[in-house]
Amino acid sequence: MVPNALCLRYKFKTQTSKLKISMIYPVNWQDDRVVLIDQTRLPAEYAWVDIDSSSDMATAIKTMIVRGAPAIGIAAAYGMYLGAREIETEDKDEFFNQLEEVARMLRQTRPTAVNLFWAIDRVLKTARDAGNGTLENIKAVLLSTAKAIQTEDLQTCQAIGDRGLEVLPATPEKLRILTHCNAGALATAGYGTALGVIRSAWKANRLAMVYADETRPRLQGAKLTCWECVQEGIPVTAIADNMAAHCMKLKMIDAVVVGADRIAANGDAANKIGTYSLALVAKAHNIPFFVAAPLSTIDFKLATGEEIPIEERDPSEIYKVGNTILTPDGVEFYNPAFDVTPAEAIAAIITEHGAVPPGELAQFNSGSIPALK
Amino acid sequence: MVPNALCLRYKFKTQTSKLKISMIYPVNWQDDRVVLIDQTRLPAEYAWVDIDSSSDMATAIKTMIVRGAPAIGIAAAYGMYLGAREIETEDKDEFFNQLEEVARMLRQTRPTAVNLFWAIDRVLKTARDAGNGTLENIKAVLLSTAKAIQTEDLQTCQAIGDRGLEVLPATPEKLRILTHCNAGALATAGYGTALGVIRSAWKANRLAMVYADETRPRLQGAKLTCWECVQEGIPVTAIADNMAAHCMKLKMIDAVVVGADRIAANGDAANKIGTYSLALVAKAHNIPFFVAAPLSTIDFKLATGEEIPIEERDPSEIYKVGNTILTPDGVEFYNPAFDVTPAEAIAAIITEHGAVPPGELAQFNSGSIPALK
Repeated sequence: MVPNALCLRYKFKTQTSKLKISMIYPVNWQDDRVVLIDQTRLPAEYAWVDIDSSSDMATAIKTMIVRGAPAIGIAAAYGMYLGAREIETEDKDEFFNQLEEVARMLRQTRPTAVNLFWAIDRVLKTARDAGNGTLENIKAVLLSTAKAIQTEDLQTCQAIGDRGLEVLPATPEKLRILTHCNAGALATAGYGTALGVIRSAWKANRLAMVYADETRPRLQGAKLTCWECVQEGIPVTAIADNMAAHCMKLKMIDAVVVGADRIAANGDAANKIGTYSLALVAKAHNIPFFVAAPLSTIDFKLATGEEIPIEERDPSEIYKVGNTILTPDGVEFYNPAFDVTPAEAIAAIITEHGAVPPGELAQFNSGSIPALK
Repeated sequence: MVPNALCLRYKFKTQTSKLKISMIYPVNWQDDRVVLIDQTRLPAEYAWVDIDSSSDMATAIKTMIVRGAPAIGIAAAYGMYLGAREIETEDKDEFFNQLEEVARMLRQTRPTAVNLFWAIDRVLKTARDAGNGTLENIKAVLLSTAKAIQTEDLQTCQAIGDRGLEVLPATPEKLRILTHCNAGALATAGYGTALGVIRSAWKANRLAMVYADETRPRLQGAKLTCWECVQEGIPVTAIADNMAAHCMKLKMIDAVVVGADRIAANGDAANKIGTYSLALVAKAHNIPFFVAAPLSTIDFKLATGEEIPIEERDPSEIYKVGNTILTPDGVEFYNPAFDVTPAEAIAAIITEHGAVPPGELAQFNSGSIPALK
């Protein structure tokens, strides 16, 4: 059972208009606890919240204080360490039993992002591999694994950004890139996947404008992607989700780059609801559609995207925005949080080891992938 | 110049949860003035506002107190009478000069809906045709023409609803119909165009569910279409605009029916932003896409939809919902209110004289269209 409410302990809280942040790290290890940027409060407020128990971490993931597939993975890895720290037994078998309980609680938070399960499994494996050591030692290994996942993700995102530059269309003018939801620094250790490609394009002086789908119902595009771009002075235009096709028809968009929460072996990609619609309209206008994601997002156990579980979230996300109620009483709601874009609508999947057509993902399905330098 | 603010005089105002309305008429002639349902206050509040001057009517149209192409036409026709009533001259030439000024002001309110221009031109023509009579007489003709436009529109919508039944797909189960924005009773004299087809399907016991796109940025689907359906007990499910393609993939939708603000001679149809996107994703799933509109929506002077002017509205519509600000400072906005769906994405245009493929609209381009019985 994941609790639904969290008594937030804010470390620091300010109006965002009063600061510019050069580097955005949503998950931080500080003073023996995790400090998260509370992403539900952006862009109005920039707030950090202390998390020092595994159950608080589960709540933070479930309530989307931390969100974005890679960031969820990192947060869950730290959550595993926080959980291990809470276990009081001296018995090693009992310790691992209780650690499995922590893993179970954390796995229940969000069903779609595979990085969550990947990170928990990796942390569990390193703990078991260190099983001959003392409990103190095993706990230290858990913490260092969480830190390693975080460090690697940052390097991975920077590599994804650079590899993305190799496949973005070569246009005489600078690029206008549309993105959906937030696959940015906030969704990762930092730098971002889709926004990593956009950041690299900006640094390479190849970017004219980011178009940010607002991304109903939770508005991560309007709130988070726009905020990240503004922090770094990247020009960004907010549009409603239903405007993308019209913008494409008017030749305002050169490429679409989005993130992913889980990619099946055949290249079908689950991402924020609305991604599939965007892929279809991009295809209708011959605009290349890219998915940027680390290899940890690929779930080779799934043959196709049809097997990816789609989280349904609370109807209240559609029913109201802030305190404004949008619909009358008596209406039903359908609120899927993700959809699946079929491989054939994807020009390339941009990973840290290169951008490949979705049909060529199998080359990454081995233990022999070289580590990033 | 159309003023931006209006000192509203509310005749009647109540929480909508306290009433059920069996017949919805957005524009009413009562006690020598126009009484409008204030559509900006639905669904939270059901309020009527008195309009007794042409400039107030222009403001009501511009600020979307009254909206929807046919309803705008009706409101503008009454606005022409209100304007005529304000003219104090006894000189007939001067009267017509001033009446042209009223027409100019009303035409400036919304650029896309052709019904606005059609209704103003029709009222002007009947006034000129009655030019031999007294000014009192001419003014009476203006009022009776506005009333006639309203009465005819109600009959037209009922006919559109019935003709729509002839082309909706024949399915073993009852239909699940997706609609966008509000092309309902509120957008017309009553009954609606797209929602007219849906109402007729409901009465014919052929309807299982309406899916209502919420229709960002102004949310007319969530607010108005859902409200209309709830009033009549028609089952309705609200979804975010970006969910439609996913619903289609899951085979939750049998047909799409939308309204139109202007249709070119070749069948290209301008309608609320997001309609084009919806047409593309419906086509990708082989789901029939229908446009329901009266013949007065067809602008035979325009060869194709490329010539239709697209209104851009205030960025604040994207920037915030109610009092909740969605984006950080420093973001740009693009807020087109309409888009154009190409004829080839439309299965049929449902008019009061029958549903035809977009390529066969020319048959209606003559003065010989029979009046509805």
